This record gives sequence, C-alpha cells and structure tokens, in this order.
Amino acid sequence: MSIDQKHIEDIPLFIENRDFAAIRQLLIGLPHADAAELLQHLSPVQMAVSFRLLPKTAAAEIFEYIDADHQESLIRALGDNDAAGILNAMSDDDRTAFLEECPEHAVQLLALLDPAQQRVALQLLGYPENSVGRMMTTKFVSIRQDWTIHHALEHIRDRAKDVYYVHVVCSVDDSNRLLGVHRIRDIFLADPKSHVRDLPSAPPLYLKVTDTQEHAVKTFRKYSRTIIPVVNGDMKVVGIVTVDDVLETATEEAAKDIAFLGAVEVPEEPLLRTPLHRLIRQRAGWLVILFIGEMFTATAMGFFEDEIQKAVVLSLFLPLIISSGGNSGSQSSALVIRAMALSEVTLSDWIKVFRREIISGIGLGSILGTIGFARIAVWHELFPSLYGEHWFLIGVVIFFSLIGVVLWGSLAGAMLPFLLRRLGFDPAKAAAPFVATIVDVTGLVIYFVVAATILRGTLL
Amino acid sequence: MSIDQKHIEDIPLFIENRDFAAIRQLLIGLPHADAAELLQHLSPVQMAVSFRLLPKTAAAEIFEYIDADHQESLIRALGDNDAAGILNAMSDDDRTAFLEECPEHAVQLLALLDPAQQRVALQLLGYPENSVGRMMTTKFVSIRQDWTIHHALEHIRDRAKDVYYVHVVCSVDDSNRLLGVHRIRDIFLADPKSHVRDLPSAPPLYLKVTDTQEHAVKTFRKYSRTIIPVVNGDMKVVGIVTVDDVLETATEEAAKDIAFLGAVEVPEEPLLRTPLHRLIRQRAGWLVILFIGEMFTATAMGFFEDEIQKAVVLSLFLPLIISSGGNSGSQSSALVIRAMALSEVTLSDWIKVFRREIISGIGLGSILGTIGFARIAVWHELFPSLYGEHWFLIGVVIFFSLIGVVLWGSLAGAMLPFLLRRLGFDPAKAAAPFVATIVDVTGLVIYFVVAATILRGTLL
Repeated sequence: MSIDQKHIEDIPLFIENRDFAAIRQLLIGLPHADAAELLQHLSPVQMAVSFRLLPKTAAAEIFEYIDADHQESLIRALGDNDAAGILNAMSDDDRTAFLEECPEHAVQLLALLDPAQQRVALQLLGYPENSVGRMMTTKFVSIRQDWTIHHALEHIRDRAKDVYYVHVVCSVDDSNRLLGVHRIRDIFLADPKSHVRDLPSAPPLYLKVTDTQEHAVKTFRKYSRTIIPVVNGDMKVVGIVTVDDVLETATEEAAKDIAFLGAVEVPEEPLLRTPLHRLIRQRAGWLVILFIGEMFTATAMGFFEDEIQKAVVLSLFLPLIISSGGNSGSQSSALVIRAMALSEVTLSDWIKVFRREIISGIGLGSILGTIGFARIAVWHELFPSLYGEHWFLIGVVIFFSLIGVVLWGSLAGAMLPFLLRRLGFDPAKAAAPFVATIVDVTGLVIYFVVAATILRGTLL
Repeated sequence: MSIDQKHIEDIPLFIENRDFAAIRQLLIGLPHADAAELLQHLSPVQMAVSFRLLPKTAAAEIFEYIDADHQESLIRALGDNDAAGILNAMSDDDRTAFLEECPEHAVQLLALLDPAQQRVALQLLGYPENSVGRMMTTKFVSIRQDWTIHHALEHIRDRAKDVYYVHVVCSVDDSNRLLGVHRIRDIFLADPKSHVRDLPSAPPLYLKVTDTQEHAVKTFRKYSRTIIPVVNGDMKVVGIVTVDDVLETATEEAAKDIAFLGAVEVPEEPLLRTPLHRLIRQRAGWLVILFIGEMFTATAMGFFEDEIQKAVVLSLFLPLIISSGGNSGSQSSALVIRAMALSEVTLSDWIKVFRREIISGIGLGSILGTIGFARIAVWHELFPSLYGEHWFLIGVVIFFSLIGVVLWGSLAGAMLPFLLRRLGFDPAKAAAPFVATIVDVTGLVIYFVVAATILRGTLL
C-alpha cells in the first residue's frame, strides 16, 4: 500500500478553493502513516494549513508518523498554541524520539508542555542515549495481585481511555514492584470472582531502564513478545516498551551495519537531503584512514623494488594476489559478524572459528592457486614468450602465494570481529575495506617472500 | 536474561535420580524461550526424556522456540504418538516454518496430523516460498459488523481458548470479506448495546496472501501494527500475520544483507555447525568468480609492462591507487544500499545520485590526491634518491590518478545497486568485493594512462 499520487495533487486545489472539509475528510480517511506521508509531500505552508484542520487526537497520532525534519518545521509553522496541543497529546516515547532529533529547540519545546508532561519528558530524556528508558512509554496499565478479575477488568476498561496498549498488563505489589505479566486474553477467560494472583503467569520477563536498545531488540526477538515492562533498580515498573519501536530500532541497527560494512559513518539524514559538503566530510574520515593504512603497501613495495626491476612479470600478478586475500577476508568477517548478530557465536568461540578458518583458508587458497597456475600454463601455451622459460616457477610462486595470502586473509577477517567485540566495539566495524587494507600490506609481503624463495638463482 | 548454567547441569542429575517432577517444575517455571534454550543444551536422549514430561500445551509452545535442527531430531526421538501430539498442537505459522526446514521428512510429518490440521498445513505450504501465506496463521477471531458489541465480546471470549492473539480482531461481511480491523481496547470501551459497525475503524490495512515477506516487514514498520489481516484475491480474510514473525524475518533479512556484503552465500545453518566442506564450497563460488574478474588486472597490467620496466617506481603506488578506488566505491554502494533499505531512494533517483557522486568523487579524490602528493614530497625531502629528479612529476601523476580512480570508484559503486535493482536482483549484492573487483581493473588503466600522459618524454 502506498499513497495515491492524485491525493498529493488534490490538497493544493482544495486549499485554493478553501474546501477545508475535503482536506480533513481525506486525511482522516487514510491510515495515519499514509496521512503523514501525504503531508510530507506538501510545501511547509500547505502542510501547516492542512494539519491545523485535524481533530486533536488524530493530529497527534499523525504527527508521530511524520519524519523528524518535517516534524520540526511543522511545529515551528504551527505557532505555540497548536504546537503545545500536539506535544502534550503525543505518546511519550515518540515525543522523546522527536526531542532527541532537535536538541537545539528541545528546551523551547519542553516549555510548551503541561507540568505533568514536562516531568515525564524530562525523566525520559534523563536516561542515557540508546537506553531502554529512551524508547519506553510511561502510559501503561498495572493491576494489583489482590484484586479480583472483575475489579481488574473494570480498572483496565477505565484506563483504556488514556492508554494505547492494554492487551498486556503488569501485576504489581503495593509498592509497584513487578510480580507478573498477563495477557488480556487470560484475564478475559478467567473467572471474574477469582483473583489476579491466580492468573496463569510465566515468570515475568522485564527490561531494565538502563539496558541498551540492542538488548531490547534481542529480548523481543527471543521471547516473541509485543510488550515488555521496564523496571528500575528497585524492580518497580516505570514503563513499557512496545514491539513497534523495537521493529524500528531493529531496522535502524541493520541499516547501521550496512553503513559500517561500507566503511562510512552512519548518516543522520536521508541520503539525498544530506548536504554534499557534510557527506564528503563524513566519507573523507574513513577514506583517509584507509588511505594512510594502504600507504604501507608503497613502503613495503619499496623493499622489493629490486625484485620487481629484475622480474617485472611479478608485478603483473600483484593486484590479483592481494585482492584475493582481501576477498577471502571479507567473506570470513561477514560470516563471523552475521553469526554474532544472530547470537550463533560468542567471544569464547574464537578458537573454534580460528581452527576452522585454517582449514577453509588452505582449501580455498588451493582452489584459487590451482586456477592461477592453470591460467599461467594455458597462457604460456598460447603465447610462449609472455612468461618465458621460467613460466613453471612463476606458476608455482602464484600457487603458493595464493594459499598463503588466502589463509592469512581468512584468519585476519575472522579474528577482527572477535577483537573488536573484545575491545568493546561493534564487530560490524570489521568491514571489507578495513580487512582488505590490513590484508593488502601483509599479502604483498607474503607474495614477494614466496617469490624470492622460489625464484632465487633463476629469475631473481 | 539468559539461562542459568546450573540448570543445564541439574537436568542430567535429575534424570539420573529419576526425579521427573523436578525437571517438569524447572522447565515450566522458565519462560518458554528459555526452556527451549535449556533443552537444546542437553543430549538428544536427555532432551527427549525431559520433553516428554511436559504438559501438552506447554510442550507445543516450547517446541516452537527450539531451533530447526533440534526440532527435527527431537521429533524423531519422540516417536509417532508424541510427535503427532506436538505437531497438532503447534501454531500453524510455526509449523509451516518447521516443515519448510525439513523437506525430506515433511510428508511423513504431515501424515501425523489430524485431517483438519493436515488441510491447513498443506494450504499454507501451497503458498510460494517467501510469501505472506508462508508466515501467517489461520487462527484468528473475526466478528460480523451487524453483531452487537455484547455479542462480539462473548464471541471473542469464546474463541480466546483456541486463538493466541485476540487483541486485534477483523470485522467481516457475511461472505467473510474484510470490512474493518478493531482493537480490543475499542471494543472494550464501546457501549455493549451498540454495533460492531459503529466502532472507530481506520480504513482496514491488509496484506495479500501472495505479497512478499519483505513487503510485510515494510508494512508493519510503516503502520506500527502488531497484527495485520491477510486476504485472498476475493478480499476474504484467510489469516493474520503477527509482529513477532515479522521481527524474526526482519532480522534474517538484515543478516542476509551482511552475508551478501561480504560476498558469501547466505548460510543455511549456524556457522559452527556447517560442515567445513560445505562452507568451503559455498565460499569458493563467489571467490572464484571474483578471482576470475581480478585476472583481468593481470591482462591489463600486461599492456603496461614496458612502462613498469622503465619506471618501476610506478608499481610501488599501484596497490595504493587501486585500493582507494575500491574503498570509495564500497562507501558509495553502502550508502545507496542503505538508503534503498530505508526507502529513502528509489530507482528514479539514480540521476540525482549520479550527479552528487561526481562532486563527491572529485572532492574525495582531491583530498586523497593531496595527501598522496604530500607524502611523495616529504619522502623526497627525507630520502632524495628514492624518487629521483622526477619526484614532482610522480607526485602529479599520483594526484590526478587518485582523482580519476576515486571518481570512477564512487560512480561505479553508487550505480551498481541501481543496476542490480533494475535487473530485479537484490541491491545488497553490490558488495564491497564486487565493487572493488570492477574498480581494480579500470583503476589501474586510469593510473597507467595518466602516468603515460604526464611522464612521456621524461621517465617514460
């Protein structure tokens, strides 16, 4: 499903004709996410005009689906009164996300909130960035274990006016400490005269307010929940995390990995809206670091200048040899990063992976080495002058170099994610370009040393 | 949260002492996902013994959390009677996933099902792989628009015994065609004497049974839902998709991207459990293709053998130059793949991206070129004999080559994902190693052509 091109063209016409009822009807008739998408296609003024026509609750809900850039310009176009209405009616987790995105106006915007909402917003923004506290909502329903089911249902019905998610509720003791997590289905099915404490309940699953968002994603995935309560250090329930925010976080984490794997910083804005000078600055950082790393290849090559002078033929195969090391290293690092992301492999498995990579590296190196040797043999048959009388020895050099370089690339690529995780970094930073850079320098040393050993007395 | 090491050690002791009550209590006391994880740590026999102690419903639910390999061996260890019990009690979406994983036993396992379950299982397996039909469950509640709220609530309560998800229900007409999607909260809050048709309802969001799972992930993300109904070609409701399966699919899609980006096939089994010969075969495919691609570097180098012979100094910078092209290409492709994954960029944006990459490429190339020139100038000051009297011209060659190679790398890297998507492939296949291979051959041609132009009459 996606929005209709016609709708985008309709709204400006409606505005021109002052047919405001039509705009309201159009926007309310769409799912909120589509209404938000439609608004984002309008000019800032058209957007503000249309938005002001919406009933308050719908406005707040549609606002939550608008992206951060448009949210900011819309809030500014609306004026303080309307802006205050929206901000107070927003759900608190989405509000935290919005305020995070515009730090320079956050104080101004906070001032627009009711005292109660202000307290909530400040509390949520007080949790560390990227923590569960920053993604939770404080609007949830809890019931007491000593209540009857009848009383609990009355309470839930009562609270449902203000709370968006009621299909999972926590039960707590009289100090608000978490005791159980119940599905509305089970409450529904229970005898109204029985007590909450008699409900079926798995041991309550919870997140701590200081847990990382990555941990939240893993927990949701593992336990297949839609809502998980959040507790503070005293096990008191302070909020809930809902699966829609988790799905969003999971997608962003995955996109972050893609950026890492290409050795660029994670862009903060959509690609086409990032000013070019900023994009160049972001890319230049890693590119320069990689470039400086690669400079060691020039230094290393310097040591073998004599060999190259004597046997220029060696230089012909240089790009082939070193890129094979980089490619096998990229494969190994991708396999390990992926296995870590899926929790198939932990830090302590490094030695198992290391042993397996030795066999894989030698196996793959032999395959490439054989192809490399065959290529030289065939070319020698076709053009006997190309590699001269020593073609066989050159082939042997290529064969053994490829085994060495692929083995080294596989080991380095597989171990780098472990090393990064051990040092507390994201293993996904072991991107192909970094692996290739590390492997290039060593790869060419391996190549020339193998060549020097085998060709001594003949070509060298 | 994770399971306790002590629990893993306890179970074998309990089995030895024939203390079966203790095992049952331990497993039931854990969240199902943890009980499943614990079982997977046991030997196949211990696992089957422990599993048989569980009450039927708990057994089916815990079974759903066990990974496919262990599921298969467990089912075989259980014997037909117990296996049939589990398979019939499983939720149908998880059963489809399980049957997908063991195609060679699927027929045998299908035979164990009750006729009704058999029909459902065959129906679901009849949908194309990777379609919404393969991830949906047919257990859902629908209510009729002409019912009263009171009647609807009675119906939901009644169905809740068999249906896991009741917090969102569809309303349908008398031919089971989708009319609305309602949250249990709204039904709760409505006047029991009013009718279902009076409930607040956004236009119903739905998935088609033939939609791709990727589309399902995008829809869940965009509209923040926990349940979306699935309709067939006649708009009749045939099932629902729940967010937990979507989160799982989203994670797997992301992991697939990681594998692609390292130029390996997506492994089907956990890394450490994949037999090495299969892993080597999987990796060898792409590695050989990349190797053959890189062979063209040797061919291209052959054309410049004379130049290298005359000015060996040129070969020293070769790895540096061509790797810079590969690195900038990896960055561009990662940025474009990421933007496509987040739906920031569509096919028609290619020309905008192309124009922006021209500027980025020249900008980044100039930065690297300047550093490269500076390095030669500084080294010349330190070791005047290194590059000889023509150091300045060599520096100029490096400067312009880097601009050319980085520009070319950026353009090729940015356009490859567009090309792949245009041809119907996954743009994430534009992995760093492929980009690097394409760029290496062209990069060295650019380098030697620039060198030949600038150094003609001096070094060459």
